Amino acid sequence: MRIEVLAIGGEIVKGIVVNSNAAFISRFLTSEGWDVHQHSALPDNASLLKDFLAEAWKRADCILITGGLGPTCDDLTRNVLAEMFSSKLIFNEKIAEDLKKRYGSNLASLQDQATVPEKAQVLINPVGTASGLLFEEGGKCLIAMPGVPSEMGVIFQQSVLPYLRTKFAHASRKKEQQVHLCMLSESNVDPVLNDIQKNFPQVDIGIYTSDGLLSVIFSGEKSSDLNSAATALTNAFSTQIYSNTSVRIEEELQRFFITEKLKLGVAESCTGGTIASRLTSQPGSSEYFLGSIVSYSNAVKRDVLKVPEEILERYGAVSQETAEAMALGVFKIMDADWSLAVTGIAGPSGGTEEKPVGTVWISLAKRNHPPESLHFKWRGTRQKIITIVTNYALSILWRRLIKGVIGP
Amino acid sequence: MRIEVLAIGGEIVKGIVVNSNAAFISRFLTSEGWDVHQHSALPDNASLLKDFLAEAWKRADCILITGGLGPTCDDLTRNVLAEMFSSKLIFNEKIAEDLKKRYGSNLASLQDQATVPEKAQVLINPVGTASGLLFEEGGKCLIAMPGVPSEMGVIFQQSVLPYLRTKFAHASRKKEQQVHLCMLSESNVDPVLNDIQKNFPQVDIGIYTSDGLLSVIFSGEKSSDLNSAATALTNAFSTQIYSNTSVRIEEELQRFFITEKLKLGVAESCTGGTIASRLTSQPGSSEYFLGSIVSYSNAVKRDVLKVPEEILERYGAVSQETAEAMALGVFKIMDADWSLAVTGIAGPSGGTEEKPVGTVWISLAKRNHPPESLHFKWRGTRQKIITIVTNYALSILWRRLIKGVIGP
Repeated sequence: MRIEVLAIGGEIVKGIVVNSNAAFISRFLTSEGWDVHQHSALPDNASLLKDFLAEAWKRADCILITGGLGPTCDDLTRNVLAEMFSSKLIFNEKIAEDLKKRYGSNLASLQDQATVPEKAQVLINPVGTASGLLFEEGGKCLIAMPGVPSEMGVIFQQSVLPYLRTKFAHASRKKEQQVHLCMLSESNVDPVLNDIQKNFPQVDIGIYTSDGLLSVIFSGEKSSDLNSAATALTNAFSTQIYSNTSVRIEEELQRFFITEKLKLGVAESCTGGTIASRLTSQPGSSEYFLGSIVSYSNAVKRDVLKVPEEILERYGAVSQETAEAMALGVFKIMDADWSLAVTGIAGPSGGTEEKPVGTVWISLAKRNHPPESLHFKWRGTRQKIITIVTNYALSILWRRLIKGVIGP
Repeated sequence: MRIEVLAIGGEIVKGIVVNSNAAFISRFLTSEGWDVHQHSALPDNASLLKDFLAEAWKRADCILITGGLGPTCDDLTRNVLAEMFSSKLIFNEKIAEDLKKRYGSNLASLQDQATVPEKAQVLINPVGTASGLLFEEGGKCLIAMPGVPSEMGVIFQQSVLPYLRTKFAHASRKKEQQVHLCMLSESNVDPVLNDIQKNFPQVDIGIYTSDGLLSVIFSGEKSSDLNSAATALTNAFSTQIYSNTSVRIEEELQRFFITEKLKLGVAESCTGGTIASRLTSQPGSSEYFLGSIVSYSNAVKRDVLKVPEEILERYGAVSQETAEAMALGVFKIMDADWSLAVTGIAGPSGGTEEKPVGTVWISLAKRNHPPESLHFKWRGTRQKIITIVTNYALSILWRRLIKGVIGP
């Protein structure tokens, strides 16, 4: 079965927004065992869209479209699809009733948003005005959803995914085994994966790095092969594998803290709130995460975290001594069992010869125990350094707590 | 001139990572006045890649590829391109010398990474091992870059963009005028844009919303039309337009604070560090941003921000009273001129009938002045609510400081 995902919108091809819808949809399709063959994005241009769809409809069994269904002047997906499927546009009373109920009968876009191609099955949008549209022809299907990620997400999960499961119940499905690793680079893992590939030539191996975290995905027909491959990798990197289901290491940390009924407090400087933001992106994080002191200025390090002025003066804000004082400072103001602290230079300015941009200290401490620290020098843009430091800080904490290991 | 951007990698079509490279590249191309006609992403599959490139090479003048150039077993872009351009793969001494100089002669991937198609011009990668490759044929060009965003970014800016400027110096360029607005929805802006479209039918109008921020991009041949269109929009929404160059409202806030020599302190609850993370994503933010107290637990609100226990008990953590006490609390521990505080329920749990998920209070205060507050009820997923609250908090602060307006 060949599936393609198409995003329509000038904002995407102009690079104003990143096409997160395609990734969202593809994660679900992949976890169902279906391969996604192509992502595409096109501007709001009827002629480009028609040409593309004419070709895509020949090669694909299923086309999932996001965007271009809204009420504004640049939204033209409905017209293009009506023409493609030789269907007239009609005013749909059911959609109109539903919109009136939710938005009142004065909704300016009512006429527009209730007008849809006659041949389309309508997928109700419970959180917006643009309905989803489903076309079937010759065993194939084309489904159009709005481009607003939250609206697309609801329609996809409530209507599209259940439909696809039934429609393609008999399509072959690949099996997949994920292994997510921390504190390793591609070059650390590659020799091991080359051996695994030799032993299991029928297994497809994908390696995906993202700023200090690394995912390996084995896929193929036989579960036993995938399990053996995953086991070989696990044996080689037993203290670095944090999950077989999700790249989000914060999920694993949260599970540990909640299960053990422990609380975490954070103090961050160069990551500027990103560690806290990652931890709290998880629903339920308030059960264990007390808070973070984003001590961007030395004054906040001194006045809130109680880092002694003398340490700041003698060793500087980016030093093992300051990182450890920050980690210990957390205990003075929060009733935490563990603390995590980070200080460094994210750049692009602020570096010196002795402490160049990318110099970072990460400390963690258990209440009433001495802090433990690691020192890194990374290279890259400001954003890259912030993301790597965040991933490493979470990884170091995870490894210390779950594997009892401290070290790079 | 027709430009296409192609990403190669299973991690993209599986949805493991979002294709940010395409957006990065497209922003630069668009700002040069060139239209990007299509984005695509394909898995690491030689046959899909060959089929796609055969078609794309017919229709496009320029194809920019990211990914699949690394040393691992799943990287196959170089082989596919060598075949496509009937070029053998040769060992390139210059690349090898450069890699040896930077990584030492023991680099395991040296042989692999220095082997490139003979017909390709090599674009040196100063921050990684995979060189960029440039092919020219019949007035067209195809350029392959590594998929690691930081490596791609350097090669694109240092080598690819200057090359394209020369190569396509005579291609027609569109002009563009951006208007970025806050605290407005598409439906607020659409009637005004419909009028503008009637008055300037030759101007293309794109509207792009992202969780509480909204961008309008006028494009066309004549600068005078674009300026008139932008002026009409500016007249209608004078206190909501924060930039004509960037969607990042934190840039405008930073410019204001640094110019006025003022300092900002933040206290955040439901946004969990995201406000601080956004502010500090800007280089130079340490010049005005003192820090943020991410007071996720009530204890931190009470012990660090000095929110009176009585207020927390009587009004609850999500209340105007708590938000204002948080904003005032900032001044007790930071030498700030302004403070910004946010408290709310990001969900999915924690809502009540009186205070459902999405209930948020945003307060700001000038030192020694009473705080000002706004109350919102948003709907959506946890991530959406966090992002909207962050955008609105920054917008409210910007509007209060630069436009002297408080209000939705």
